[in-house]
Amino acid sequence: MLAVTILGNNSAVPAFDRHPTSQVITMNGTSFLVDCGEGTQIQMMKYKIRRSKISHIFISHLHGDHYFGLVGLINSFGLLSHQQELHIFGPSPLKEIIELQMQVANTTLPFPLHFHTLTQESMLVDEEHFSVKCFQTNHRIECYGFVFTEKKKPRKVNPEKAKAKGIPTSFYNKLKEGMDYMTKDDVLIKNEWVTEEAPRGRVYAFCADTKYDESILPHIKEADMIYHETTYLHHLEERATMRFHSTTKQAATIARKAKTKKLLIGHFSSKYDTLEEFEKEAREVFPNTELAIEGVTYKV
Amino acid sequence: MLAVTILGNNSAVPAFDRHPTSQVITMNGTSFLVDCGEGTQIQMMKYKIRRSKISHIFISHLHGDHYFGLVGLINSFGLLSHQQELHIFGPSPLKEIIELQMQVANTTLPFPLHFHTLTQESMLVDEEHFSVKCFQTNHRIECYGFVFTEKKKPRKVNPEKAKAKGIPTSFYNKLKEGMDYMTKDDVLIKNEWVTEEAPRGRVYAFCADTKYDESILPHIKEADMIYHETTYLHHLEERATMRFHSTTKQAATIARKAKTKKLLIGHFSSKYDTLEEFEKEAREVFPNTELAIEGVTYKV
Repeated sequence: MLAVTILGNNSAVPAFDRHPTSQVITMNGTSFLVDCGEGTQIQMMKYKIRRSKISHIFISHLHGDHYFGLVGLINSFGLLSHQQELHIFGPSPLKEIIELQMQVANTTLPFPLHFHTLTQESMLVDEEHFSVKCFQTNHRIECYGFVFTEKKKPRKVNPEKAKAKGIPTSFYNKLKEGMDYMTKDDVLIKNEWVTEEAPRGRVYAFCADTKYDESILPHIKEADMIYHETTYLHHLEERATMRFHSTTKQAATIARKAKTKKLLIGHFSSKYDTLEEFEKEAREVFPNTELAIEGVTYKV
Repeated sequence: MLAVTILGNNSAVPAFDRHPTSQVITMNGTSFLVDCGEGTQIQMMKYKIRRSKISHIFISHLHGDHYFGLVGLINSFGLLSHQQELHIFGPSPLKEIIELQMQVANTTLPFPLHFHTLTQESMLVDEEHFSVKCFQTNHRIECYGFVFTEKKKPRKVNPEKAKAKGIPTSFYNKLKEGMDYMTKDDVLIKNEWVTEEAPRGRVYAFCADTKYDESILPHIKEADMIYHETTYLHHLEERATMRFHSTTKQAATIARKAKTKKLLIGHFSSKYDTLEEFEKEAREVFPNTELAIEGVTYKV
């Protein structure tokens, strides 16, 4: 299961009961938090996200609407006697910001807090079943997108076929890895005769805040689902470019060129009280577009 | 009019839809924000507090539940093109915390931001119609309470009586200041014959976070309304003392000894899902106690 739950879908100033950016990515039983705008911990309570499940937090950039809720969340983890390690990934000054606020309050956390500085294009997490990478986007300040990838599962053994070919069960793990089998009589049993390929792992790409920039395409190419910001509707393309943000049609064009299956749009400007037009405009360019709605979980 | 609107009444971790500490004090058309826990700007929108009315923010201490919403609020003021000066009063490290977060985001505010460092017992604001003073409370880290005082209004002239005594209207302003009038025939008209004393200005004392400590009494004596924290019910007095907090009965005892008219209690621990017991226990010691309820305005 790879899924994304939206906690906040608004840009900059909270408005119309929309909150600043935050998403929970669930992958193989692990929960990752991506961005943590002010009020994220309150949104987590509202939408029944278990704080104790969060072990990794990724902060795309240091505009307040993407991280002002982080120190409060860390603090609450401490007060609630969170035990497991917490890994935070973000641009370099974030460490100093957090440490300063902990220090003035004489706060000692009851769990290890590991800070990881983001740098251009790197592997952040590489576990048995999944990986997380970052890539730079084109924003006013240093800013990163994140790619969450389920690793390909082992090949699936067909036990009837394997048994018919005389392969002992002790060799099944090697079959899963793709190895052929040689019988005692030196007959080669090709792996693909007795196994099936597992479906490829799913991929979710979070493109953070960015102006229209095709140079992110290689990082997000063929992701099953892409989140791309659409701060403005098409009519404000000039303003979007000037402020290093994107419009509906720009996000949808990126989705089309990336050959993704589904586009999720968010980071809506506070000047818009309703969102229907965002969906309509984006779908003109990329039909399988959905609005990122707070509290909703999108399966990848 | 002197009134207090509660935006947050919970301690530490937000819970049961209760938010961290924040109050708006309205006095003579000016709005003051006292403490600014995470989500305060969202609470302000919910309860229709006009952000543009806020010119002074007082931060009692640097535990996160009292100020983690401040940088987000300042940021939003900037994005919403707030024009007038903003004065922030808080313990010294607050300036560095705010400036660091502004600097990493390349934020330039469109209004002047003045930072004032709190020090023991001082006059913070001294305007024609009101004043704000601070005093130290007894908490784990440097912490301040605030006293909001309406200044005594000028004496009220009774125009009929003044006219009957032959006092010209050009002398009325001096009558308001308390001066006697001497007629052309050297007859002394005593001020109190033609004026009435204005009622004394009202006083509201916010006692911040504190353990039970009678040394705050001289600062809050005879205030019309006192806000005192009650993090715990009476049964957890030992824990309250250990953590530099107060219980219901301790807060109510302070109110009784201060000879206030009304006690407002708040900063409830997240361990309590309902608040009835807080009201009940405090009223046993000080009958005119009210719970600080979010969204409610209490007139002083």
